[in-house]
Amino acid sequence: MIGVAINGYGTIGRRVAYGVSIQDDMYVTGIVKNSPDYVTKLASRNFNIYTPDMDKKREFEAHGIRVKGTLEDLLSESDIVVDGTPEGNGEKNLKLYRQYGIKAILEGGEKSTVVESSFNSYSNYPKSLNKNYVRVVSCNTTALARSVSPLKEKFGVQEVNATIMRRATDPNDNKKGPINAIEPSMSYPSHHAEDLKTVMDGINVETSAIKVPTTLMHVHVINLELKSEPGIDEVISELSTKRRLILINDKEGVNSTAQVMDYARELSRNRSDLYEIAIWKGSINIYKNKVHYIQAVHQESDVIPENIDAIRAMFGTDPDLSRDKTDASLGIKGVEY
Amino acid sequence: MIGVAINGYGTIGRRVAYGVSIQDDMYVTGIVKNSPDYVTKLASRNFNIYTPDMDKKREFEAHGIRVKGTLEDLLSESDIVVDGTPEGNGEKNLKLYRQYGIKAILEGGEKSTVVESSFNSYSNYPKSLNKNYVRVVSCNTTALARSVSPLKEKFGVQEVNATIMRRATDPNDNKKGPINAIEPSMSYPSHHAEDLKTVMDGINVETSAIKVPTTLMHVHVINLELKSEPGIDEVISELSTKRRLILINDKEGVNSTAQVMDYARELSRNRSDLYEIAIWKGSINIYKNKVHYIQAVHQESDVIPENIDAIRAMFGTDPDLSRDKTDASLGIKGVEY
Repeated sequence: MIGVAINGYGTIGRRVAYGVSIQDDMYVTGIVKNSPDYVTKLASRNFNIYTPDMDKKREFEAHGIRVKGTLEDLLSESDIVVDGTPEGNGEKNLKLYRQYGIKAILEGGEKSTVVESSFNSYSNYPKSLNKNYVRVVSCNTTALARSVSPLKEKFGVQEVNATIMRRATDPNDNKKGPINAIEPSMSYPSHHAEDLKTVMDGINVETSAIKVPTTLMHVHVINLELKSEPGIDEVISELSTKRRLILINDKEGVNSTAQVMDYARELSRNRSDLYEIAIWKGSINIYKNKVHYIQAVHQESDVIPENIDAIRAMFGTDPDLSRDKTDASLGIKGVEY
Repeated sequence: MIGVAINGYGTIGRRVAYGVSIQDDMYVTGIVKNSPDYVTKLASRNFNIYTPDMDKKREFEAHGIRVKGTLEDLLSESDIVVDGTPEGNGEKNLKLYRQYGIKAILEGGEKSTVVESSFNSYSNYPKSLNKNYVRVVSCNTTALARSVSPLKEKFGVQEVNATIMRRATDPNDNKKGPINAIEPSMSYPSHHAEDLKTVMDGINVETSAIKVPTTLMHVHVINLELKSEPGIDEVISELSTKRRLILINDKEGVNSTAQVMDYARELSRNRSDLYEIAIWKGSINIYKNKVHYIQAVHQESDVIPENIDAIRAMFGTDPDLSRDKTDASLGIKGVEY
């Protein structure tokens, strides 16, 4: 059993903790929280709580929360740590993890240069086999890799161009904006293009990013130039072979991210998450070697299966075995239309 | 075992179906859907599907959905029907239910005059004992009854004045507005005041309703004039005695409905629902006989425990027994701060 520490229990950390807790070959040794808030109180029902240091431990205990020890205690009791701390802390934390001789996973907000490999389960799982320091790419990059990589494998991809409509903030945040404006990024390509290259060698990609006033999901408008000219049925069939992609149908009432997330709630999953990337079947168009499609990304949860797989990769597990276990436990079955 | 038909599987119907399905003294005989959409497809994994008529049955079957029969077939096989059809259909449907000699529950959008009693579990459960036609009051009225009735019982209430900030629409809807305006209702009192009187005899109440651009929850600002002058601790302690109310704490980061619904997601419930009315502890203020507090209402789910209790009331079950069973099954434990 692999003992997994979770350092940082925010949007990603809490979901990785849940995901790990339902596997049969790993378990959560404990989670590190930075403030004694409602999330910590609720988490303490299921997990051992650790704090960054002794001062915080005393603060938590003053709020009636039982603390098992400090981050360093936890690292010494675990085989691997998943770092879900706020963006930019990973590099600093990595020094501590090295000191404790513990494997570590960083998330997509961290630099790719500080780890041995960047990870996406579909596009480059084998690169992280038995590695010690791995980065799971961001929600948007994960989503791009998920749908582009099977098309690349089957038909070849000359060029990817994607417009990324980013959700302004996550649903549990009431501070950030915009609430009534559309905010384009002036960077072209946006950082997502470089990031996709870390998990898809030699891909030719340009991306543009625009923030829109919603919290539910990101939406990607994707144009691919293929190396061949498949029929639309071949493209649909290829996208249907991967469990972590689902084809959704506007003709059955899934017209917007409102219904995609409602669909997710109807699956009775923990936190009503949607781990799969949802591609609108009706948006798939093809002209000669050019494919166009639109996909929706649940930014809070799409990287969770990748984090579980990354843990297994780092302990030498075969890709297919890991994906099968991860998907079966999370209820990811693939959906056919 | 009470056989419960669900006619209409929208926001309320689907949640009542789930709630019934996890009780040990009732079961879902089937659900009636009007269109072969994604919700129907997903529902068909768990429930028998019926259609309003034979034409619809054929339409559903053309979409690959197995249909067990029509509404009338379902009524003849059930002991009670919960009507979750769109607002205003209940009265018409009631004629059919009478014809089939079947007990029926209507929801809060229907007129109180067409049923034998209106229902709230805290304030008037006994009135619906062994009745045939009962209406569960709306999400807002349920929420008002939940927090006002224990205070009324303990301290007496002279007058209630509430400002109801209504969510514009439910999360699965992408058509209705407003998205960037605040829309006051000119009716004073708003219909909620009359509705509260149907479950709280002789209550003196005025309400004002304002639509705001959010989908998560309603929020009520409540001012009560009591018949006595309790201390704030007595008020808090009284509100803490009811499991379907929870006191939430802004000091632990619950500053807005964004965090209240995040709190709900952390409870790992089906659809991430919050059945309890959430009262901000920090909002409770008292001056002489006047109490002020603010509460948040998950409009999609707060009436679900009431629907389950109403079914039991109509078959003669004791109130405490029903509430205990309902709350235990739905994970409603009361939360202490």
